[in-house]
Amino acid sequence: MFRVGIVGDGYTAADLLRLLAHHEQAEAVRIFSTENIGRRIDEVYPHLIGFSELICEESNWDLLKEECDLVFLALPHGLSVSIAMELLPAGVKCVDLGADFRLKDAGLYEEYYELTHPAPELLEEAVYGLPEIYREEIKQASLIANPGCFPTGAILPLVPLLEAGVLESSNLVIDSKSGVSGAGRSPKASSHFCEVNEGVKAYGVGTHRHGPEIAQELSRAAGKTVEMVFTPHLIPMNRGILTTIYARLRTTADPGLVRLVLEEKYRNENFVRVLPAGVMPHTKWVYGSNLLDIGIYVDEKSRHVILVSALDNLVKGASGQAIQNMNLLLGLEENNGLKLAGIHP
Amino acid sequence: MFRVGIVGDGYTAADLLRLLAHHEQAEAVRIFSTENIGRRIDEVYPHLIGFSELICEESNWDLLKEECDLVFLALPHGLSVSIAMELLPAGVKCVDLGADFRLKDAGLYEEYYELTHPAPELLEEAVYGLPEIYREEIKQASLIANPGCFPTGAILPLVPLLEAGVLESSNLVIDSKSGVSGAGRSPKASSHFCEVNEGVKAYGVGTHRHGPEIAQELSRAAGKTVEMVFTPHLIPMNRGILTTIYARLRTTADPGLVRLVLEEKYRNENFVRVLPAGVMPHTKWVYGSNLLDIGIYVDEKSRHVILVSALDNLVKGASGQAIQNMNLLLGLEENNGLKLAGIHP
Amino acid sequence: MFRVGIVGDGYTAADLLRLLAHHEQAEAVRIFSTENIGRRIDEVYPHLIGFSELICEESNWDLLKEECDLVFLALPHGLSVSIAMELLPAGVKCVDLGADFRLKDAGLYEEYYELTHPAPELLEEAVYGLPEIYREEIKQASLIANPGCFPTGAILPLVPLLEAGVLESSNLVIDSKSGVSGAGRSPKASSHFCEVNEGVKAYGVGTHRHGPEIAQELSRAAGKTVEMVFTPHLIPMNRGILTTIYARLRTTADPGLVRLVLEEKYRNENFVRVLPAGVMPHTKWVYGSNLLDIGIYVDEKSRHVILVSALDNLVKGASGQAIQNMNLLLGLEENNGLKLAGIHP
Amino acid sequence: MFRVGIVGDGYTAADLLRLLAHHEQAEAVRIFSTENIGRRIDEVYPHLIGFSELICEESNWDLLKEECDLVFLALPHGLSVSIAMELLPAGVKCVDLGADFRLKDAGLYEEYYELTHPAPELLEEAVYGLPEIYREEIKQASLIANPGCFPTGAILPLVPLLEAGVLESSNLVIDSKSGVSGAGRSPKASSHFCEVNEGVKAYGVGTHRHGPEIAQELSRAAGKTVEMVFTPHLIPMNRGILTTIYARLRTTADPGLVRLVLEEKYRNENFVRVLPAGVMPHTKWVYGSNLLDIGIYVDEKSRHVILVSALDNLVKGASGQAIQNMNLLLGLEENNGLKLAGIHP
Repeated sequence: MFRVGIVGDGYTAADLLRLLAHHEQAEAVRIFSTENIGRRIDEVYPHLIGFSELICEESNWDLLKEECDLVFLALPHGLSVSIAMELLPAGVKCVDLGADFRLKDAGLYEEYYELTHPAPELLEEAVYGLPEIYREEIKQASLIANPGCFPTGAILPLVPLLEAGVLESSNLVIDSKSGVSGAGRSPKASSHFCEVNEGVKAYGVGTHRHGPEIAQELSRAAGKTVEMVFTPHLIPMNRGILTTIYARLRTTADPGLVRLVLEEKYRNENFVRVLPAGVMPHTKWVYGSNLLDIGIYVDEKSRHVILVSALDNLVKGASGQAIQNMNLLLGLEENNGLKLAGIHP
Repeated sequence: MFRVGIVGDGYTAADLLRLLAHHEQAEAVRIFSTENIGRRIDEVYPHLIGFSELICEESNWDLLKEECDLVFLALPHGLSVSIAMELLPAGVKCVDLGADFRLKDAGLYEEYYELTHPAPELLEEAVYGLPEIYREEIKQASLIANPGCFPTGAILPLVPLLEAGVLESSNLVIDSKSGVSGAGRSPKASSHFCEVNEGVKAYGVGTHRHGPEIAQELSRAAGKTVEMVFTPHLIPMNRGILTTIYARLRTTADPGLVRLVLEEKYRNENFVRVLPAGVMPHTKWVYGSNLLDIGIYVDEKSRHVILVSALDNLVKGASGQAIQNMNLLLGLEENNGLKLAGIHP
Repeated sequence: MFRVGIVGDGYTAADLLRLLAHHEQAEAVRIFSTENIGRRIDEVYPHLIGFSELICEESNWDLLKEECDLVFLALPHGLSVSIAMELLPAGVKCVDLGADFRLKDAGLYEEYYELTHPAPELLEEAVYGLPEIYREEIKQASLIANPGCFPTGAILPLVPLLEAGVLESSNLVIDSKSGVSGAGRSPKASSHFCEVNEGVKAYGVGTHRHGPEIAQELSRAAGKTVEMVFTPHLIPMNRGILTTIYARLRTTADPGLVRLVLEEKYRNENFVRVLPAGVMPHTKWVYGSNLLDIGIYVDEKSRHVILVSALDNLVKGASGQAIQNMNLLLGLEENNGLKLAGIHP
Repeated sequence: MFRVGIVGDGYTAADLLRLLAHHEQAEAVRIFSTENIGRRIDEVYPHLIGFSELICEESNWDLLKEECDLVFLALPHGLSVSIAMELLPAGVKCVDLGADFRLKDAGLYEEYYELTHPAPELLEEAVYGLPEIYREEIKQASLIANPGCFPTGAILPLVPLLEAGVLESSNLVIDSKSGVSGAGRSPKASSHFCEVNEGVKAYGVGTHRHGPEIAQELSRAAGKTVEMVFTPHLIPMNRGILTTIYARLRTTADPGLVRLVLEEKYRNENFVRVLPAGVMPHTKWVYGSNLLDIGIYVDEKSRHVILVSALDNLVKGASGQAIQNMNLLLGLEENNGLKLAGIHP
């Protein structure tokens, strides 16, 4: 059994434990916390009773260096860099579920996260952890920047089409609808039940931190800076992100290529399902699972393309993808611990 | 007291009765049904106990002609035309909450509703019932095509800006998020609780009937055919539509004009609130009310404009707007019966 | 116009303002806050844009004494007593929406609220503000203890039956299901969207503070200490309390008496609807309104009685009932400002 | 691999397939339908894409006899008996997820289900499929009556305490709160999203069919007819049943016995978790899993006992329990295919 540690005790940490409980070759051996030190994790999260008996401990990097093959950093941004700098030289692989290694441009990080990046040299070393795009790089890496939940839903449908030159790289509109768990577990006015339930709103309009992350990956795929807008919305549900993408066919591209390219790209993937023509995704179909579904609509006359993706923000958008990355880093079967179907209804 | 009749007993009929109960100069005197004939309406809708004692009756146009000044047609499309043809010549004004008189182009009606329009000549006579746009025409009219719920949320933010030449008329993306009551009261697989709750999906992608209705009004405002995409989504909530609109500033337009034009246009309106800079609408803020809120974001650098509107699909998107039209048709104060604030939380 | 002040800016304060906006003879002139001093209340609660332009101010009792006929105290328990002691001698009537004057027994207050009551003499003066039970006392009072939300739903169905000797006063089980707004607006782990949505739980089992409040009123009605259990549950909805009451017919009582007594008691009330046989309440039927609905089931064979009541915890369970009390205190029509129907669906 | 068939294509059938996809020693080989004949099941339920490629077929009992070791009957009541009579003699074991074999008393079946039972002799042969109570009988059986969802949540906490004589067998109140999936997949007015969301109601008050089923098992445990009331409520959530049980300690019983007896009984069970003192269940903690959680509150003074249980109505309340029964019938490890934790948040 490989031995892994978890730093942090929020919702993504809890979902790591839920999924690791089914893993055949890796087990969680340590969990570090600040607020719950000394409490059993199944006291903090009673759904884990019978699935984990770990006790939340004060951070101790030496312990991780001695005991762990890999560590998940499930922390707010700004806290992961120094930990990675401790662990990596000791040969402990790191998967950062936060944002500290996602943007390759330290200037952009500073602009959006209002922090000077303490180790810009690590940005180059870190591999962006989207296995469907960077599988080979991940296998060779020690430090993974696990992608944001919104970026995962926007990038996987678009990258193959931008790489293939099927879509124009301008006038991209990405409109995402997210459940509330993406905002984390700390009580805030904006995640109060009564402020969310039976309503819907846009937030972070024009300023959300996942915008530059999406732009970075799409621009790389397009071979030039894409011109795009990204707007997230908050939906009264716990889990799930639906992303509706509006794009245009390039003048030279055949409308049939959209489906062809996506089906070809994802045919052998474990976790990406390109839905049949006429079927559009529903977030509940992937609830609790590591799947990402893609629906396709092409208006041949107007040459508009609408792509819709669905994922569970805590799984394929966070902890599931982190385990998928772990599997690659440790040389395991990529879907180990991740074979779950979505829970519907 | 003016006397009004209601044909139909679905959710919009129920909300007409809820609102008319507070009206000082109009009262509902008849309600016609097919499924609930003989039952009291407050047995069908117990929330109306104490607010209406009407009995659902079989349709009888002569009764309406004798007794009513105005009739609300709250029916599925295809059923209103023949009734209007009965009532109008008898001097009974009609507000059709369905779709039969909204599209000026009978060919488009046939294409989208799969029915040959039985009285295309009425399409010219009918006035599109958006008081903020067509107030004077409504006052003179006898037949009102009450707008669709999605079109109301898309048209009110865009029309003043297209008329003023502030926005480009191409590359418009309209992404709407709707509660379930818009789909009506008949049980269907798609409105089953378990198929909607804790999830989100797009529907009618590229084919929704409100698309041409929106295009008609935007094109009239722009003075030319707009180029637009409209996609509705189903959200786990009863009431409310949030519409996120993506547009671009015309090269000649100053970014500040967006707010200026909308504030100027709606300054004296009872039911449209242009929210302050930095505030984006939440559907719960207008829940149960006839209000429509508009939020504005302009990215001066990229010249993208994001407009977000919120309304209650059963009120400003249907029954409230119908009563607003009734008030104009009958020469009453426009906000009579409609002074309610939204219910929050 | 009567002039009223509001101390506090939580959800009940907001709903006071929503309802007072429709009131014909009273207007809110001051609102005091601690967290939002200097902000317009419609900035804190944008649903009130166009309905209130009040600015949240620092507490200043002299202002209230000079300007107000009546003051609503919408505060956490423990804070109202000293304010009432300031205002009452100056002739300002007080309606306390908190718990400080509800329990007649200062010892019980100390046991459940963990505070020594600072003015036990006021407990006698205060009238428990359930107009359907204490209407005449309220009219003569200066200080009203506005009932808790759960007690309102439990007491109104039971008191007439206990007074009439129809039900046994032992073996009463009161099982309540509440929306989340009853827990107030401050962000807490227990009101985090993800901890409530798509789930249900019991809380405060055996220890909830509304237990002794219910017992006090039921015992008064029964003429002896009732023996009861009360358990509240948290339901994923914003507003509404459904209370299911299990009781037994006294051996001497005719089963038909249950309905007879309740219908007789509430026949002329504005806000209590005894539903017809076979119809059980739904909280959505009273959503946003000051109504309380009661459904009745009597099993003649086993002599079990099941009573179910529904109310909106922020209206009949708090702010609406407070305005109903205000109307009585000021000699106004009892339903002024409170004529709203429930919002369904 | 054991080969199993499924008759029916509703929500419980879908959840059988979701769970069987993880089973190591059994696979679904046939699914029979009436409405979806010829469609792939993953077209009907897209969350199963990649997990089942079965095609819905017209019923054909010969096929099942040839191919299957065991068949799940996931049908409305009244339809299972004749199928079981076909399959059992051919050596095919049957697990009926419907109600046809649950009541031992054919008269009660006739009273509550309004059907004359066509094979009362099978009622004796059938074993009530609660493994925690009837494990040894199940292992020897051929026909299992899979318990109702409400009965599972009521019986498991109460039976050990009634058997041990800890609780009185009279004055039992069972108040259940259920998600909507228990009502099945067919669209009905009562499962329309807008009729359920943001509200709560009681239903089947005094008449629900699970009442006599609960009474049968409790009376067996108590050794005499229990006196109880059962009321279900509909909660705006997809999955989950919370059952709040009110009982009284027998005069001779020590209060500490409640916890002692339950912990002793369930110590070695895979699927029942007796929660620590002070912790009450939340349905989300068992979401999607085969677990049943029990919380205990004993008021030593009044000698009231409150037991709260939580389960997922489609898993431990239906399909998961059916697979648990299957594992016993086939001699497999009892938790095969059922090792999932609950999905929280």
